[in-house]
Amino acid sequence: MQNLQIKLAKRPIGTPDRSNWSIETHEVPTLQEGEVLVKIQYISLDPAMRGWMNDAKSYIRPVQIGEVMRAGTAGEVIESKNPQFKVGDKVTGALGVQQYAIAQGKEITKVDTQLAPLTTYLATLGITGLTAYFGLLDIGTPKAGETVLVSAAAGAVGSIVGQIAKIKGCRVVGLAGGSQKCNYVIEELGFDACIDYQKDNLKEELKAQCPAGIDVYFDNVGGDILDLALTRINKKARIIICGAISQYNNTTPPKAPNNYLSLLVNSAKMEGFVVFDYANQYLQGIKEMAQWLKEGKLNDKVHIVKGIETFPETLLMLFKGENFGKLLIEVA
Amino acid sequence: MQNLQIKLAKRPIGTPDRSNWSIETHEVPTLQEGEVLVKIQYISLDPAMRGWMNDAKSYIRPVQIGEVMRAGTAGEVIESKNPQFKVGDKVTGALGVQQYAIAQGKEITKVDTQLAPLTTYLATLGITGLTAYFGLLDIGTPKAGETVLVSAAAGAVGSIVGQIAKIKGCRVVGLAGGSQKCNYVIEELGFDACIDYQKDNLKEELKAQCPAGIDVYFDNVGGDILDLALTRINKKARIIICGAISQYNNTTPPKAPNNYLSLLVNSAKMEGFVVFDYANQYLQGIKEMAQWLKEGKLNDKVHIVKGIETFPETLLMLFKGENFGKLLIEVA
Repeated sequence: MQNLQIKLAKRPIGTPDRSNWSIETHEVPTLQEGEVLVKIQYISLDPAMRGWMNDAKSYIRPVQIGEVMRAGTAGEVIESKNPQFKVGDKVTGALGVQQYAIAQGKEITKVDTQLAPLTTYLATLGITGLTAYFGLLDIGTPKAGETVLVSAAAGAVGSIVGQIAKIKGCRVVGLAGGSQKCNYVIEELGFDACIDYQKDNLKEELKAQCPAGIDVYFDNVGGDILDLALTRINKKARIIICGAISQYNNTTPPKAPNNYLSLLVNSAKMEGFVVFDYANQYLQGIKEMAQWLKEGKLNDKVHIVKGIETFPETLLMLFKGENFGKLLIEVA
Repeated sequence: MQNLQIKLAKRPIGTPDRSNWSIETHEVPTLQEGEVLVKIQYISLDPAMRGWMNDAKSYIRPVQIGEVMRAGTAGEVIESKNPQFKVGDKVTGALGVQQYAIAQGKEITKVDTQLAPLTTYLATLGITGLTAYFGLLDIGTPKAGETVLVSAAAGAVGSIVGQIAKIKGCRVVGLAGGSQKCNYVIEELGFDACIDYQKDNLKEELKAQCPAGIDVYFDNVGGDILDLALTRINKKARIIICGAISQYNNTTPPKAPNNYLSLLVNSAKMEGFVVFDYANQYLQGIKEMAQWLKEGKLNDKVHIVKGIETFPETLLMLFKGENFGKLLIEVA
């Protein structure tokens, strides 16, 4: 059986293109005792992937040249020599950008597609949802009545952050690019307001939409928006540094938050996190979000692109802001 | 009785000079019922004063043009129409840069000069010591064996921060300008190491002196040093933004921490604070530091300049890094 794999061919400078990838086909090896063969059905596309392509010390080791690109995936067990898994089991795990993967067992997790569709386990009930959940609740600690600002509000993480903040009784203001996204953020996700950073006067709109200032800013983008948000924070505000998608393809150092001394005069904090820090609390987060999904309080929006061979271009949709909700590749 | 007062005459652009001040002499008014007349003996010089001179929204209202410059002071009650104070009482309070002040009572605090010299109540047992104490312990939460980096280590706050971190069992590395200061920081204050930012290769020395990385960085200076420290922080590091003395006289926006995404990959935080946030815990801090002073674990170093009329130039010593320990003006 042939396995199409997408490997890192060379490290990108700036925005990656086809030359950074090698698309290869290899025979799937014979299973050894204890192994499981997974047919990958969905591949998760995440901004963090861009960081994994750099040869830099980070929270996780870089993907090596010639290695299958790291990615979260969901699929089905089609062969098993591991007593914990049987053919037909649906599983998730970081199995990479490929059609088939051999797993040892501990790196995959069985999921129940009676409870939620398989794609949900890569979106709200996956790393994406958990990132929103723990970043907002553990670092942001939003309280009812507070104002929560969320950048990349139409994106996978941002859309969940805003919805959870609404559940917690906050005024929730999103930032997104374009009126179509802003409408989606307000109408489908239920944010109180959404600022179109492509069109609006950011400074004025931030003031208008956050009349009581900003208590929590969940930052997915970095750059000028972070810098501007710093000028509007309240006493004891919490800024959650989840990402800086505006900066990941830069070939110059990231745009820094010049206004960081606002943290001092406001006794505020800016804190980063990596979702893996919360691994021993994942189950709690999944349980609570599953309940919210069931109650219709969370809208689990996935944006599916078909065909694993589209990976090099589909990845770039994240940086161009072309996705609504969680971006996935459907392999088959 | 004549009272020499130093008032803000015009707001500075960049480094303040004599033209920003007006030195005036006025008759001390007659005391009203409930009032206290204080003869000011020592005036505290603090980097924060530079911020109070700007017409900008901050944690405290700006000093107004024509108003006596705000300053922490210590002195003696020489006349009292308030039953809570009697002539001869030693008191501290933010009574401003002047020789005499009329207080209503609630803005001054009696201190016991049997327990510690009056100057100590402006240094270790005053706002300076409390800034070090709460910033380090509440935000920095240093644990034995961790590495604590302190900038402006020979300064009033930095010198106390480092000594408290030593009490807590940390490896303590200072940053100071010049070999004389570095020697003082190591020999008199007991830091484990001190990097001379005027001479040393900062990047290399930071690596050499913090071989296990930085767990806590107490930042008094901002600028390039903060940016560099960000590249050496450990997982879950805490950066305390206490000040940015390198930036206060800038006429351009402060040098921003370009490497702030280090907070993300290290799940670290950068948090500002204002000591007034801890007002209801001051007594606890004073009590513990008084005990450390008594046990000889804290060295309460004051740097005294004589003459209130030197104020315009003495203030600048802070920005030139010319003080060792807490800078005070002795009024008489």
